[in-house]
Parts: sequence; C-alpha cells; structure tokens
Amino acid sequence: MSEQNSVNPSTSSNAVNSPFLQAIAQQIRGQDVYGVYRSWSNELLLKAYVVSKQKKREIPVDGEIDPMTLSRIMAFYRAAAACIEKETGLLSQVIVDLNHEGFGWALVFAGRLILVRKTMRDAHRFGFDSFEKLAAEGEDLVAKAVELAQRFPEVGNV
Amino acid sequence: MSEQNSVNPSTSSNAVNSPFLQAIAQQIRGQDVYGVYRSWSNELLLKAYVVSKQKKREIPVDGEIDPMTLSRIMAFYRAAAACIEKETGLLSQVIVDLNHEGFGWALVFAGRLILVRKTMRDAHRFGFDSFEKLAAEGEDLVAKAVELAQRFPEVGNV
Repeated sequence: MSEQNSVNPSTSSNAVNSPFLQAIAQQIRGQDVYGVYRSWSNELLLKAYVVSKQKKREIPVDGEIDPMTLSRIMAFYRAAAACIEKETGLLSQVIVDLNHEGFGWALVFAGRLILVRKTMRDAHRFGFDSFEKLAAEGEDLVAKAVELAQRFPEVGNV
Repeated sequence: MSEQNSVNPSTSSNAVNSPFLQAIAQQIRGQDVYGVYRSWSNELLLKAYVVSKQKKREIPVDGEIDPMTLSRIMAFYRAAAACIEKETGLLSQVIVDLNHEGFGWALVFAGRLILVRKTMRDAHRFGFDSFEKLAAEGEDLVAKAVELAQRFPEVGNV
C-alpha cells in the first residue's frame, strides 16, 4: 500500500516505528471519524510531515495556513502531550495559536507549568527533512518537558 | 463628551479611575493608531465592557465572535499582563485562543509559568455588570497572578 502511494519513497525508514511517530499516527487516527485512513499504513499517514527544503520554498506564505498543515501541527503537539502524559502522569493541554501570517505559539501545559513553549513562524511550511528528524525533534521536546515536570512537580499539579 | 455619547449613564462611577480600568484604557489607546478615540474619555472608551444580563441574552452565540468583542477580551488580558509586569517585573505574553463557538482559553504567562489560566465560554457575551465588577475581576486576576509569581519565582524566569 505505502509503496504504491508513496510520493517520495526515499523517506521510508525505521523511524516510522519510533514511539513519537506512532503517537502522531495515533492522534491522526483518533480524529479520523470517517475511517478515511483506516487502510493506510503509518508511513503513508505520516509522509506529509516530511517536506524537503526545496518543497518548502515552493509553499507560499502569504495566504491562510492550509487546514491540513494546521491539523498536522496540532497532531504533532498533541502527540508530544500524550508522550509527556505517559512519562509524567500529567494531563496536559495543547494550544496552537497562529495568525494569518503563520506566526504564533504552540504551547503544551499542565497545571500552571508550560511544558512546551514554542514560537512558530512560517507555519505554512511546517515539516521535517526526514522521519528521523521528525522523531528526533519530537523526542527532544518530550525529554525537555519531562525534565521540567520533574524539576517543578508542584507547578504542574497546581 | 462622555455625557453626550453615553449609552447608559447609570454605569458611571469612580471605578473608572481604578488602576485596572486605566490599564485597559491604555491598552485600547495604544492600539488606536488612527486616533479615533483621542477625544474620548476613559469612561466612554470602557463603556462597552459593561453588558447587562438582559443585553447578554440578546447577543447571539451562533456566529463568529464580533471582532470588537475579541479586541476587548485581548485588551482586558493585556491590561492584566501589564499590571502583573508592574508588580513583579515579569515580562508576560498573552494568548487568547477561542473557537467559533466562543469556547477556548485565555492565558497570561511568563517564562514557564502560567500566571492567568482561564477557560472561556460564550465569549460572544464577554462583559461585566458594572465598572466595579470589571475592576474587581481584573484586580483579582492580577493579585492571584502576583501571588503565583512570588511563589514560583524560578519558573517565571526560566
């Protein structure tokens, strides 16, 4: 399936089995109320997260952010929140607040503690060089958030 | 001036001189690049924050939030952020993230610490019974935020 539909087969890799990418796939499938993606492999589902530098340059940043891009950004941060919850037990909220120019914030927070605090720009071009980069960025976010949660346990549970 | 234009003169009061209401007026004037409000008194400027229960019921909640209401909400939380900054020295950010149904979050945060964390609903009907109530609610937000900032100074400065 994934080979037939693959736009860019060179991105296939084992990274798609990493816990973070599986968490993203789970978020997307959780929102898939009509079962559109039921027969899709995770790799195919996550392919749109891989955007080459060349391709990024081709995406215009002067219109509204594409709703699919926005939902990919949400799934990314919700996956981070889910992974953080798994490691710390903290129930966290996600806010992605972007203006029409693709500038804004992505926050993951629990209690009074901001676990992930990311300023975004050029959100229209959200994407990663490869599945490995995607997994690495996600795991890095999660690791830093877990560290913060352990450093300030009282604030996360306020 | 304010008397001529006043829609509802019964709301006039000394509360309009409270530090919090002055902070809101300052926020509105700061955004007033064309000087539309230059000749308006603070009382007239803030009048739209006072919405009676009766009037609230008349505001439909099924369309988009009125942009003027949204800017009043932003000015309210930016004023809170300004007052918090004055008392604690913490430079804080404001996020108001509302969906089309008027549900969402208002956050004021500094560093990794969420100083104001408010879930909103029926944002279309944002308003207060009187200037006194507006001032009281704002001052309460600020007082709680300052307390948090003092309790977790390390988190606010991360």
